[in-house]
Amino acid sequence: MILSENLEKLIQALNRFPGIGRKTAQRLAWFLIAQDKNFALQLADTIKTTVESFTTCHLCNMLSESDPCPICNATDRHDTHLCVVESNSDIQIIENMSEFRGRYFVLNHLLSPIDGYGPEQIHTAELLNRISVLQPSEVILALKPSSEGEATMHYLWELLKDKNVTITRLSTGIPFGGDLEYSSINTLANAWKRRYTV
Amino acid sequence: MILSENLEKLIQALNRFPGIGRKTAQRLAWFLIAQDKNFALQLADTIKTTVESFTTCHLCNMLSESDPCPICNATDRHDTHLCVVESNSDIQIIENMSEFRGRYFVLNHLLSPIDGYGPEQIHTAELLNRISVLQPSEVILALKPSSEGEATMHYLWELLKDKNVTITRLSTGIPFGGDLEYSSINTLANAWKRRYTV
Repeated sequence: MILSENLEKLIQALNRFPGIGRKTAQRLAWFLIAQDKNFALQLADTIKTTVESFTTCHLCNMLSESDPCPICNATDRHDTHLCVVESNSDIQIIENMSEFRGRYFVLNHLLSPIDGYGPEQIHTAELLNRISVLQPSEVILALKPSSEGEATMHYLWELLKDKNVTITRLSTGIPFGGDLEYSSINTLANAWKRRYTV
Repeated sequence: MILSENLEKLIQALNRFPGIGRKTAQRLAWFLIAQDKNFALQLADTIKTTVESFTTCHLCNMLSESDPCPICNATDRHDTHLCVVESNSDIQIIENMSEFRGRYFVLNHLLSPIDGYGPEQIHTAELLNRISVLQPSEVILALKPSSEGEATMHYLWELLKDKNVTITRLSTGIPFGGDLEYSSINTLANAWKRRYTV
């Protein structure tokens, strides 16, 4: 017996979030109904306001409330360094580090021809255009070291290698706090190969 | 640098869900913004509609779109069996089993004096009243076997033991598919004590 059509609709909607299964969706839906109503109504409003206020920055491809976005617009950030990331949320992660004061470019996808993500889907033309405008001295490919990430970095390196710009990527190895025992054989072999004098 | 006040508000709101940490909340918020806008707006609407349509059934304490709720109102369900559950979502779980055709009563909390949940908070008076009206032959205490659950079952048993009603609780033991190796010592000791002939 389905107790309520509305509740079922809410559960199915929450179930569409990535990583939220049916059981978690049920728990969240009951939480919304059982806790104070104001919280749920405010959440609904916040979703609406936020989603409606975001647009794509035509310079860096990031979702933002203004176009150009605050980072492309900032006068106290340097054009000398351009950081290429896979997704919008990566920018917040890098910003939290408080190390980087350059510009960003969001690919939105990694190269994965089997999933239909080719050079066009990762916005190659816009990236090349951005590089020719900014003339950075370094392009940091801050992509994850998965097979798609590696393919994308290789592809971008091929495109950029003759352009008089230093192309870097994030270091790979054993994560801090990580265990040799729980590291994959690939991670370990890579860390071994890239070992450095202490 | 906080990229957007609105986004931050949305993340904090999602972060209030039980079991949703800051990182998951960030992922969900970006999903809402980056995926198709219609889904997000529909979700906001569904939250509003659902939350506004629910009210508490004055008979069984369950959150429902009608008062009395569909289960208290159903003429094809039996007054002979009353199932006492901790929360609203437990009802859907028991209904999915398609075994039970009696009535329910929702406590909303388990007894936990340290958290401020005493007899009043678990709606003892309303439960006793419901029992005196329905006159069930069996009251099933479908509560979890935690320390709060055990305390609540013991308390309710004390209240009901002289009332000419059979009081039952769910069986405890090793779950189907469970491993002896991964069962806690309490679970195992209990299953050992409650072993039965095959």
